[in-house]
Amino acid sequence: MCAATALPSQSAEFPAWYGEVVRRAELAESSPVRGAMVIKPYGYAIWEMLQRELDDRIKATGHENLYFPLLQPASVLAREGALVDGFAPEVALVTEAGGRKLEEPLAVRPTSEALIWSTYGRWIQSYRDLPLLYNQWANVVRWELRPRLFLRTTEFLWQEGHTAHETAAEAVAEALTILHDVYADTVESVLAMPVLRGRKSRGERFPGAEDTYTLEALMRDGKALQAATSHYLGQGFARTYDVRYTGRDGTDAYPYATSWGASTRLVGGVVMTHGDDRGLRLPPRIAPHQVVIVPILREADRAGVLQAAAALADALRAAAVRVRVDDRPEHRPGFKFNEWELKGVPVRVELGARDLAAGVVTVVRRDTGEKSEIPVARAAAAAGELLDDVQASLFEAARDERERRTVRDRSGYVELTEYLSRAAGLVEAPWCGRSECEARVKSDSSATIRCLPIDERPAPPGACICCGRPAVTTAVWAQAY
Amino acid sequence: MCAATALPSQSAEFPAWYGEVVRRAELAESSPVRGAMVIKPYGYAIWEMLQRELDDRIKATGHENLYFPLLQPASVLAREGALVDGFAPEVALVTEAGGRKLEEPLAVRPTSEALIWSTYGRWIQSYRDLPLLYNQWANVVRWELRPRLFLRTTEFLWQEGHTAHETAAEAVAEALTILHDVYADTVESVLAMPVLRGRKSRGERFPGAEDTYTLEALMRDGKALQAATSHYLGQGFARTYDVRYTGRDGTDAYPYATSWGASTRLVGGVVMTHGDDRGLRLPPRIAPHQVVIVPILREADRAGVLQAAAALADALRAAAVRVRVDDRPEHRPGFKFNEWELKGVPVRVELGARDLAAGVVTVVRRDTGEKSEIPVARAAAAAGELLDDVQASLFEAARDERERRTVRDRSGYVELTEYLSRAAGLVEAPWCGRSECEARVKSDSSATIRCLPIDERPAPPGACICCGRPAVTTAVWAQAY
Repeated sequence: MCAATALPSQSAEFPAWYGEVVRRAELAESSPVRGAMVIKPYGYAIWEMLQRELDDRIKATGHENLYFPLLQPASVLAREGALVDGFAPEVALVTEAGGRKLEEPLAVRPTSEALIWSTYGRWIQSYRDLPLLYNQWANVVRWELRPRLFLRTTEFLWQEGHTAHETAAEAVAEALTILHDVYADTVESVLAMPVLRGRKSRGERFPGAEDTYTLEALMRDGKALQAATSHYLGQGFARTYDVRYTGRDGTDAYPYATSWGASTRLVGGVVMTHGDDRGLRLPPRIAPHQVVIVPILREADRAGVLQAAAALADALRAAAVRVRVDDRPEHRPGFKFNEWELKGVPVRVELGARDLAAGVVTVVRRDTGEKSEIPVARAAAAAGELLDDVQASLFEAARDERERRTVRDRSGYVELTEYLSRAAGLVEAPWCGRSECEARVKSDSSATIRCLPIDERPAPPGACICCGRPAVTTAVWAQAY
Repeated sequence: MCAATALPSQSAEFPAWYGEVVRRAELAESSPVRGAMVIKPYGYAIWEMLQRELDDRIKATGHENLYFPLLQPASVLAREGALVDGFAPEVALVTEAGGRKLEEPLAVRPTSEALIWSTYGRWIQSYRDLPLLYNQWANVVRWELRPRLFLRTTEFLWQEGHTAHETAAEAVAEALTILHDVYADTVESVLAMPVLRGRKSRGERFPGAEDTYTLEALMRDGKALQAATSHYLGQGFARTYDVRYTGRDGTDAYPYATSWGASTRLVGGVVMTHGDDRGLRLPPRIAPHQVVIVPILREADRAGVLQAAAALADALRAAAVRVRVDDRPEHRPGFKFNEWELKGVPVRVELGARDLAAGVVTVVRRDTGEKSEIPVARAAAAAGELLDDVQASLFEAARDERERRTVRDRSGYVELTEYLSRAAGLVEAPWCGRSECEARVKSDSSATIRCLPIDERPAPPGACICCGRPAVTTAVWAQAY
């Protein structure tokens, strides 16, 4: 790692800044296969904590994990028309295995609806078998032409839930439970990323979905990131793969489906939501090290300072704080400060002989840079409080930033598309619901409808910002990752 | 699930018994891709618990997780001669992606030494960067001609550790730490599978390894299962991928490597170590349900019995016992008893109005079938004790079974190979160390050397069972999965 050279400026060169932060903070790097990344231990530790948070909520809402194979016969995938149209351009195909050409190519899973629904037919015989509430943690491959670490990679890690229900209402409720209780709760309370909750327009839906629910977050370059999606699939997959069961009234019925996913892309979202010109700023709840203790060592008092650092670390660990003592002899304190700032550790404690003599330590919070002296005896308790405060402050700062960059004042089509075309932020405005207007905004500004908010404002929607016809809904536009 | 028909006899038709238990207990089933399995929720829950146990130990011994890509350029894999010779026949190749033929085929990872060592060159510059102690959880694909659920599947889930060290002694110590403190401890104390700890003969080593350490367990059909392996790789991979660093003396040096893996195959090992003619017998520490409560319901006293069942379940949960109340109205108690026996739940509690009136419940342990009446007030505590007892008893029973089926009496070559050729168990006997004798035993009996025990008996090894020359070691032979 090289912490010596300054990072590119976030505001002036966002893409370069992003790439350098990801690499220098040792989150991930490119691999010999174009578009596929190596997730390094520091980045993977963040993903593991996020995984645990998601998995706990997935199980708490009644789901079980299982595992379906990576390779899927191309013919199984091809049966679902919308799905194959949506994914065919991105699929990787295994054509040889075991030293021979295969009779039928195998697709490396781009998503698992097809394989899973071709199997559910055997599992769903009676209404008593419903609902099926299953999830899997897996890798998927989608060939990306313009890959970016975490955000668009040829292979990524995710969870994909696939459920089956007796009624449409139950399936819709499931999709919304996942959106709110699993995804929004994790993204907001753990990743400290404020999100808009909404549904996608027809043109932006998942292939084969009747409704796609989404979480949209604003990044610090003014672009939106789709943080997670949850799809109500209706009976389409059940019909395609002929999944029928005997209903309560004794007649055959098709179950209703949902699917939903969140991926390693969220790690990129954390970088782009909270990072600044000094590097990462990690929300404490997913920081691999929540506190780093940097002992300020001089030859004379070395042992005493190291002992005090170890004692403080023990006190923090006893309070369930993830703490690291950086006692590497080959680096000076200033180098370490820069490095841990780059890596986004929420709280740094500096501890030297002079401090010890005075009975204090210096505590620095990463989010604001604020420094304070705290009595040694209170240091562990104070660090815990500070972590809660950093977690809340990062969320509030990101929410304020989003509000600041959201235009709602309906100042006219030209102004709005100009705002969108320079990726200045979000535009929330009335829409007539017609795809012609959606297409026109996109062509004039590169912005898409990110979502139709489901916590929709009670105010009447007024006139479509594009065509002036009566609006049927509010839409949120932005350029997006 | 069909619990009505009897299972095939374990002793008479072991392979059929195994397949039926895996399917009927809903651990896994075949997928449309030959040799790849769907791991169903009940089987996956076992794997998840095993994963957690392994992961905790991997981290406790100082390792961090990371993630390398699934797809590897065929040329990177091809650079390591031994590895490519070992794996080429099993590799699956992606030749098309994103709608185009690829310039270079990509191998779906059969293992990750090649890709990882082609990357470590960038990560290891100085002795200060060592050791690298990394692990990943991943899926791998190896084309199997004779697949069997969990034991040999085209795709399986595993963890693979890949470490780099300054000295050979450190690397060997690492491989042994993993063998003992991670693998043997998990397999014996969690899965209740007694294992022999040993090294492989040259002919049975991992391709590219200088030493392969292994855990070998005896299954109930008399065959051995390799439960996990840990490899000391020397400097071979470092030389192939030109990984050099500046050593303490300022000169260039190649690091020493290890790699080690354990997989979903262990779930099959649990089935074959503990199962009986009634189905699975799960060790409590990995049982998704440790206790099942079956209320015996008649119309009159339904509510009271259900209430008592719920109260007992709460008391068990408060004691951190994983408990399930089976109150399905559509099945009779006898059906439920069979089903939970098939699924291997360690302890069953039966609870009816008559029991409640008498202030007792009936507790049945799955391993021995033993029934006892226990006062309701003591039921939760008693179940906890019983779980510990079942865990210990399963281990002891398996160890006794292995000892009973291990021949050590050196009764002559013909007798020993006859014993091995009917897969009656293990033969522990002196060996001269020559591959000719290893090959002759294999050709005469289909048995291979499973390991050279590293807790080797102090007794002098005597004469090779095959050629009569002075032995250099004790070897353990068996037919194997």
